[in-house]
Amino acid sequence: MRRVTLLTDFGTVDGYAAAMAGVVASRARTAVVEHASHDIPPGDILAAALGLHRYAVLYPEGTVHVVVVDPGVGTARRPLAARIDARFYVAPDNGVLTLVLQRAESVEIVAVTEPGILRAASATFHGRDIFAPTAARLAQGAELAGLGEAVLDPALLSIPQPQRTDTGARGEILAADRFGNLITNIPAGWLESTTDAAAQVTVAGQAAGPLRRTYGDVARGELVALIGSLGFLEISVRDGSAAARLGVGRGAEVTTGG
Amino acid sequence: MRRVTLLTDFGTVDGYAAAMAGVVASRARTAVVEHASHDIPPGDILAAALGLHRYAVLYPEGTVHVVVVDPGVGTARRPLAARIDARFYVAPDNGVLTLVLQRAESVEIVAVTEPGILRAASATFHGRDIFAPTAARLAQGAELAGLGEAVLDPALLSIPQPQRTDTGARGEILAADRFGNLITNIPAGWLESTTDAAAQVTVAGQAAGPLRRTYGDVARGELVALIGSLGFLEISVRDGSAAARLGVGRGAEVTTGG
Amino acid sequence: MRRVTLLTDFGTVDGYAAAMAGVVASRARTAVVEHASHDIPPGDILAAALGLHRYAVLYPEGTVHVVVVDPGVGTARRPLAARIDARFYVAPDNGVLTLVLQRAESVEIVAVTEPGILRAASATFHGRDIFAPTAARLAQGAELAGLGEAVLDPALLSIPQPQRTDTGARGEILAADRFGNLITNIPAGWLESTTDAAAQVTVAGQAAGPLRRTYGDVARGELVALIGSLGFLEISVRDGSAAARLGVGRGAEVTTGG
Repeated sequence: MRRVTLLTDFGTVDGYAAAMAGVVASRARTAVVEHASHDIPPGDILAAALGLHRYAVLYPEGTVHVVVVDPGVGTARRPLAARIDARFYVAPDNGVLTLVLQRAESVEIVAVTEPGILRAASATFHGRDIFAPTAARLAQGAELAGLGEAVLDPALLSIPQPQRTDTGARGEILAADRFGNLITNIPAGWLESTTDAAAQVTVAGQAAGPLRRTYGDVARGELVALIGSLGFLEISVRDGSAAARLGVGRGAEVTTGG
Repeated sequence: MRRVTLLTDFGTVDGYAAAMAGVVASRARTAVVEHASHDIPPGDILAAALGLHRYAVLYPEGTVHVVVVDPGVGTARRPLAARIDARFYVAPDNGVLTLVLQRAESVEIVAVTEPGILRAASATFHGRDIFAPTAARLAQGAELAGLGEAVLDPALLSIPQPQRTDTGARGEILAADRFGNLITNIPAGWLESTTDAAAQVTVAGQAAGPLRRTYGDVARGELVALIGSLGFLEISVRDGSAAARLGVGRGAEVTTGG
Repeated sequence: MRRVTLLTDFGTVDGYAAAMAGVVASRARTAVVEHASHDIPPGDILAAALGLHRYAVLYPEGTVHVVVVDPGVGTARRPLAARIDARFYVAPDNGVLTLVLQRAESVEIVAVTEPGILRAASATFHGRDIFAPTAARLAQGAELAGLGEAVLDPALLSIPQPQRTDTGARGEILAADRFGNLITNIPAGWLESTTDAAAQVTVAGQAAGPLRRTYGDVARGELVALIGSLGFLEISVRDGSAAARLGVGRGAEVTTGG
């Protein structure tokens, strides 16, 4: 049983997501399609990159992860198929694989040029006409090299990088999740420990307290800074929303230390 | 492995959708349930018909497509089971199959009357009590004729039809999708070509430009008229929402030509 | 084929739900993951309990139902694994299993203490690190007793109980569903029949009419009281929303009789 996951900004109402699932099912009869999400905000490549990063390597080896957040459909951007370590990825060449690529050990990428796939493609729905058929091929064991030409320069998102400061670090908020947790770009490894009491954290100039281990270390409704499940510094409100409390979102400045 | 897809207006929070999936799973042990969407606006039969139309025939032959958008639950409307070409459909008799029926070559429909299904049905949740059990029967290879009595007059939606004009066509918007693309009822075949420069398009009296091939043919933020993935004229804004830009939705008039 | 269902308040955008699915898939290779819902309002344990109650026993015997609505993650609340009659459940010990437990005949519950599961758990994402791995173990046939220590006092929600009155019953609204149907805590068995014309129903002091059998028994737009698919008194508006019409939600008082 080969799993094929789908991550898009299509929503589900219009049937685009199910169309992709149907194509995979028709061409890879024993594949199991799993819908990771179709609720990515339209065109939000960074949100898709973060979401994918959170689940991609947790799936079994051989899984085919398809990502179609593709504001460039109908332009010259390339459709990619990739093997990144032990899993496969199918996505437009727009940077949505950036975070997965950043921690890869072994990568092989092609731009899909296989006439059997491209010949019948529409100009507006590559999820159905290019990405799903490519995923089905991979789910059936096709070799990457047979699908297209090698790509050595995949598009990469310019993800804001944190900086060391005299007393700690300066970074920024990459995303607010559904609970209002603010996910920063400051990695756990930059903090002395996962409960570094000296790591006074500020967000947009507002104090978020010292680093704690988990939500339960503060009272309900209190701000708490901790190492989140992606391995980055996060700022939360226990049983509440840090995004709402602090009135900030993606791009806000975060500091640690003195 | 037989696939059973579910399309409803149930949302997922209340557990109605999972209840249907559970019934299918219990009665057709090897069936794989795929959730097409549960986000159809409550009671919006046309939205469901369009969504279904987009994915139905892309699934493998033998797939059982279940649609429960059923404002008539608890009235005398009939529960239908159908074979339309090589796939099966289970839905209330309210027109939700209209678009699939319009391009069918071979159709067989019954109104479900099988006592083994109807006997225990509640008066308010036919998705769980009638449609899911019927789908499970079909997934297990049941004959349609054994489920009920032939229906020759299924309810059909009165879908607005486009008209030819001296210089082109007049139609209307059937739907705005998640991206704000406006899907019309004017078929591709009515335009000279898929890039018919003479086909000046207007929506609600506002110019939407000549026909183009794809989004990339105009600058970001510009209106573009093109043939969409369903084979109908669509009006879009590249990287934006035509519905928001033009302030229109279902029912707005569209013209092509002079 | 063993089914594992997931019910959470994670949404899908952030990838938390897919992360859980990936862990189950990696550790129980033949399990089929079914997403019941990820749209439970954040932290709303009662909503999750009602949703689960609606579908849990409709799934095949042996199904593993996972519920992660867990405002207490990062506190001392126990992670539970349970066998309730013929199905398995994995959830935090916060009452989310209350309704399923209330109608159980045979129950076995443990608090997960297995070092192979807990050793690598993060402090903030137990869905991925504890609940999904536990579900995978159960899906592969693990014995409950091998996963932890017996629990005899699972947390239970204090669900409001209805009361008998001289002329009928007094209860309250437990939930409004997506359609605006108001689900009460008054069981069908407390009414004379499922069409008890004497059972004049009021909600927050407003008349909702006598008990009917189904929506079609009143005109469109009219209020109707009936026995809903969970076996409780519900108040609806045919083709409309009773929640909006009456301006009430969870907690509003409901009476039947005189």
